Amino acid sequence: MEPRTYPEFSIRYPLLLTTLMHRPVSLKPDETGVVYRNPDTGQYFRFTWRQWYERTCRLANALTALGVQPGRPGQPGDRVATMALNHHRHLELYYAASCTGAVLHAVNTRLSLDHIVHTVKHAEDKVVFFDDSTLPLLETIAERVAPPVEKFVYMGDEAEKPDTKITPVYSYEALLAEQPPEYEWPHLDEDTYATLCYTTGTTGAPKGAMFTHRQLYLMIMHQMAHASFDASPAVMPLGESSIIMINVPLFHVHGWGVPYSSVFGASKVVLPGRFTPQGFCELVATEKVTNTNLVPTMLAMLIEFPDLGKYDLSSLVHISVGGGALPLGLKAKAEQMIPGFTATSAYGMTETAPSTVRSFITRHLKDLPQEKLDEYTVKTGLPLPGIRVEVVDEENKPVPHDDETIGEIVIRGPWVMEEYYRDPERTAEVWRDGWFHTGDVARVDEQGYITIADRVTDVIRSGSEMVPTVLLENLTATADCVLEAAYVGVPDPIWGERPLGIIKLVPGATEREEDICRFLKVEGVEKGRITRWMLPDFMLITDDIPKTSVGKYDKIAIKKRLDEFLAKARSVREL
Amino acid sequence: MEPRTYPEFSIRYPLLLTTLMHRPVSLKPDETGVVYRNPDTGQYFRFTWRQWYERTCRLANALTALGVQPGRPGQPGDRVATMALNHHRHLELYYAASCTGAVLHAVNTRLSLDHIVHTVKHAEDKVVFFDDSTLPLLETIAERVAPPVEKFVYMGDEAEKPDTKITPVYSYEALLAEQPPEYEWPHLDEDTYATLCYTTGTTGAPKGAMFTHRQLYLMIMHQMAHASFDASPAVMPLGESSIIMINVPLFHVHGWGVPYSSVFGASKVVLPGRFTPQGFCELVATEKVTNTNLVPTMLAMLIEFPDLGKYDLSSLVHISVGGGALPLGLKAKAEQMIPGFTATSAYGMTETAPSTVRSFITRHLKDLPQEKLDEYTVKTGLPLPGIRVEVVDEENKPVPHDDETIGEIVIRGPWVMEEYYRDPERTAEVWRDGWFHTGDVARVDEQGYITIADRVTDVIRSGSEMVPTVLLENLTATADCVLEAAYVGVPDPIWGERPLGIIKLVPGATEREEDICRFLKVEGVEKGRITRWMLPDFMLITDDIPKTSVGKYDKIAIKKRLDEFLAKARSVREL
Repeated sequence: MEPRTYPEFSIRYPLLLTTLMHRPVSLKPDETGVVYRNPDTGQYFRFTWRQWYERTCRLANALTALGVQPGRPGQPGDRVATMALNHHRHLELYYAASCTGAVLHAVNTRLSLDHIVHTVKHAEDKVVFFDDSTLPLLETIAERVAPPVEKFVYMGDEAEKPDTKITPVYSYEALLAEQPPEYEWPHLDEDTYATLCYTTGTTGAPKGAMFTHRQLYLMIMHQMAHASFDASPAVMPLGESSIIMINVPLFHVHGWGVPYSSVFGASKVVLPGRFTPQGFCELVATEKVTNTNLVPTMLAMLIEFPDLGKYDLSSLVHISVGGGALPLGLKAKAEQMIPGFTATSAYGMTETAPSTVRSFITRHLKDLPQEKLDEYTVKTGLPLPGIRVEVVDEENKPVPHDDETIGEIVIRGPWVMEEYYRDPERTAEVWRDGWFHTGDVARVDEQGYITIADRVTDVIRSGSEMVPTVLLENLTATADCVLEAAYVGVPDPIWGERPLGIIKLVPGATEREEDICRFLKVEGVEKGRITRWMLPDFMLITDDIPKTSVGKYDKIAIKKRLDEFLAKARSVREL
Repeated sequence: MEPRTYPEFSIRYPLLLTTLMHRPVSLKPDETGVVYRNPDTGQYFRFTWRQWYERTCRLANALTALGVQPGRPGQPGDRVATMALNHHRHLELYYAASCTGAVLHAVNTRLSLDHIVHTVKHAEDKVVFFDDSTLPLLETIAERVAPPVEKFVYMGDEAEKPDTKITPVYSYEALLAEQPPEYEWPHLDEDTYATLCYTTGTTGAPKGAMFTHRQLYLMIMHQMAHASFDASPAVMPLGESSIIMINVPLFHVHGWGVPYSSVFGASKVVLPGRFTPQGFCELVATEKVTNTNLVPTMLAMLIEFPDLGKYDLSSLVHISVGGGALPLGLKAKAEQMIPGFTATSAYGMTETAPSTVRSFITRHLKDLPQEKLDEYTVKTGLPLPGIRVEVVDEENKPVPHDDETIGEIVIRGPWVMEEYYRDPERTAEVWRDGWFHTGDVARVDEQGYITIADRVTDVIRSGSEMVPTVLLENLTATADCVLEAAYVGVPDPIWGERPLGIIKLVPGATEREEDICRFLKVEGVEKGRITRWMLPDFMLITDDIPKTSVGKYDKIAIKKRLDEFLAKARSVREL
C-alpha cells in the first residue's frame, strides 16, 4: 500500500462558495428554497432546492458553452456581468459564475452612464446578463461596451429574446433548456477570484475590488458565527429557522452577503425583484418572511405606506439596516408599527465585502435601562468577530476610548480586499502600514462601541446611494456662468440626505437657479454623466461660499450654517 | 508613494487561535471570564478576561524562558504536554502553547501507563505541565520519559513546588510571577501546527493526530455557524448569551472544541477540575451555567445523584452529549429531572478534531409529532456545515438512503487531520481515495440522518473511555493457562458498557475465573499495561467461543448470544 496524504481534502481543504451552494440541496432537496415575485406582473416563481441547484448546473454548462473561462490564483477568470433586479436568475449567476471559476461582476446600474460604461470596460466583462429592467439602459451603452463585451444574455421569464438591436443576444431560459442539469464543479483553489465589485466612485472613477472564494466564505462564516454572539439571539435566527427576503440590490456589495448566508443556512430565500412597499408587504404575508435587510430609505418608505396595516407582517423578526445610519426615531417608529421585530444597523463598504461593524448589545450591557440601551443601539456598533477594526490618529495610534476623540477607521482581516483592480496608485493610498484606511472618521466609547462621525471622503448619502459631491461640483463648474460650486447634503425624511448646491457665478452673470438646473439636466443627465436622482433638491446662488484656509470648500462650516443657507435657497426639486 | 499590498492582512490573513484569544479581552476586559472550583478544596478562583489574558501572556513569556521553540508549516514547534484536570491553568496552556507557535499535547491520563509513556515519547514532549491529580502517575513514569522530557512544571494553587523526586521541577505560579503581563504574539502562518492529540489506541499503540491553527479555527467557526442553523436556536445559545462549564476532560480531543468556542464567544467559562455530581450541581447553582457537555456516563451519574433536587439548576439550557450514543431513555429521564434543558448528541473522533455530526432537528421536520422527533433525536445526526460526511460501500459509493443498508463513514473537510504523526503506514490505511475512513459503520435515512450501527474497530465504550478489546485479549492470552480470550461489552446502566471476557483455557488447565483476574491485575494494572477501570466485570471460562469463517472471534455472534454467556459468566467486579 502506497502511503498517501490528501492535504487538499484535509489541512488545505479549500474554502469555496461551492460548499455553500451544495448544502441546501443535500439537506432538504425537495423543500421550497427560492421564491421570486415579478414586481411588474405580480407572478410568483417557486423552486425547490433541487430545482434551483439543477438550474444553476445548467447555467454553469451554459457559461462554458458561451466560452467563459475559469481563472486561477492571481489570474482572474473571465468576468461575467449582471445588470439585473433581484430574482432567482441573478442568484443562480451568483453561484454559477463564481463556482465555475469565473468572476461575477454585478454592475451597479444606479451609477451614472459614464461610470457604468467605465466599470464594464475596466472590468473587461465578457458577457452581460440583463433583464427587462435594464434593457433600455443597456441599449444606450451597448455600442460603447462592445468590446470588451462579446455576448449579451436576456433574462426574461420565458425562453424568448427581447425586441432589441443589441447583438449578439441570447435567451437565458433557452440556454438553460439546452443544457444538462448536472455539472462537475471544479475543486478550485480557494484563492481563485470569485467576484469584482466597484465602488460608487465618490472621488473619481469607480474603483474595482476583487474578492476570492476564501474571502467571501470567511466573511459568511463570521457573520453566521456572530449570530451566536448576540445577547438576544432571537434577533438573528439565521439559517434554517429564518425565511429571508433580499431587498438590498444584489449589485450592492454581494447583497451584503445574504445570497451566500441564506443558501448556506438553507433558509428559504425570497426575491422581490425591486423593493416596493406593496411588494414587500405582500411577500412577507405570503412567504412568512422572518428576516430581511433594508436601507434606511426603504424602511422610511415602508412606514409611510398607507396600506401597511392591511397585511399580516407578524412573521417579521429582524430587519438589518445598512447603507446609512439608522436614526433612532425611524427605528422606534418602525418597531411600533410592525410589532415583534427589531431593527439593527450595520456598517461596511465595498472594499470590506462589506461586513465589518454591527450594532448589537453585548451581554454585560443588556441589563441597562432602555434609554441607555437605545443610546448604544444608534451607535454604529462593534466589530464582527475575526476582523480587526481600529480608530486611529494620524500616527496610526488608537484614539482614547472617550467617545469624543475622533480618528480614522482602519481595518484588516480575512475579507478585506487586497488591492484595487488594476490600480496600484489608489491601492497605495488606502493600504498604509498594514491597515486599510476607510476614509471614515469615528469615535469610540469606553465599551468599544464605534460611532461614525463624518466621512473624510465628501459624499451625500441619498437612499442607498452615494452622491459624489465632487462629480456634481465638477459638472456644475463646467457651465460658463459658474465660478464656484459646492454641494452638501441636507437632511431628508425619506432619502436621508439630498443635495444642496451653493453656487457662485462669474462676475456680471445673470443666470438664476433654474438655468443651472437646466444645464445639469442637459449636460449631466442626458449625456450620462450623472443620473437623474443625483440632481440637487435645493440651490442657492450666492457670493458667500465658506472656504478653508487652503481654499477648499469648508463643508463643515457650510453645514454649521445650513439653516441659513437653506432659508435663502430655492427648491429646485420639481424643476 | 510606494504602491504596496498586504496579503498577510487581507487575502491571506491567517486563521489563528490567537484571534479567538483576543476577542473577550477586547470586548469586555473587566467582566469575569474564567471560574475554577478546586474539586478537592472547594475553593473558587475567578478571573476577569483581562486577568486571564495577562496570565496567558505571562505563561507565553515563561514558555520562551523554558526554551520552548515555535514551529512553522511542516515543521512542528516544541511539544508542550499537559497532564492535568480542567482548570484555568490548563486553559491558559491551551492558548499560550499554541499561540506562541508551539504544539499543545494534552496527554490522556486515562490510558494505560505503557500507552501514556508511549505518547509522551512518541510526541517527544519537551516540557510536561502536571498538577496534584497527576503527580503520583508522573512519579511512576518520570524516569521513563526523561528524555525526551527536559522539564516538569507543577501547577498548584500556590507558588510552591511539590514534595517529589521528579526533577527538574518548576512552580507554575512562580514562573508566571517572574514574567511581564504583556507578550507580542507572533503573526504565525495559519498552517503552523497547534495541537497533537492521540487516539485511545484500540488497535495497537495510540496514534497521533496533529492539527494546525487553520484547522481548529475553521472547526470552531463552523460549530458556531451551526448554532445559526438549528431549528430551535434556544437550544444552542453559544457565545455571549451562554455560561459554559467544561466537564469533558481537556485531554479529550480539544475538550470537543469548547475551550476555543467559549473564549471566542466571550462566554464565561466554568472549570470544575474533574466531574463530580456534587461539584457539577454546586457550579451550576453558583455560576448560573447555561451550557455544558457531558459523556453519557456523567449524565447517568448526575440523575442518580440523591441531592440533585437540593440545587437550583434552572439556568441550564443545553447539554451536548458525546463520546457515546445518547440513549433516549437517559435523555428523557434527565430532561424530566432537570426541567427546561435539552440534551442532544454529537459524534466525532480524534482524527476529526472532533466535530463532524450533530443530532438536531431540521426546520422542515420540526412539525412532526413528538414520537417521530424522538426517533430522529436518537439518531447520530447530520453532518456539520462545511464538512463532507458520507456512508459508502466497499467501492466507495454512497449507500442508498433507506435507513437499512450499512456502509462505512468516510469524511473529508477542512479540519480532518492530514496524517498520523510519524506513521505513514497507518495514515495510508485510513486515507484512501481522498477520503478519511473512520472505521465506523452506519446507515442513512431518507432525510440524510446518519445512525452509527457498529464499530469496525472493535471497542468497548465504558464511560467516556474506550476499552481496546485487543489490548485485553492480548494481555490475557499471555497467561500460560489461556488459549484464547475474547472480550465484548455488556450494557451497563452507569458506564454504558463494561467488559465481559470469554476465555478458553489450554487443555488440562484447571484455573478459574479469579485466577485470570489476579493475573490481569498483577501483569496488567500493576505493570501499567492496562488501567484498573479496564478490568472486566464478567468472565466466563468455556470451550465455546464463536469464530468467523476466517478464524477471528465473531463478536456479532457473541453479542447475539450475550444473555446466554452472561447467565453462565461469573461476576468478577468485586474480586
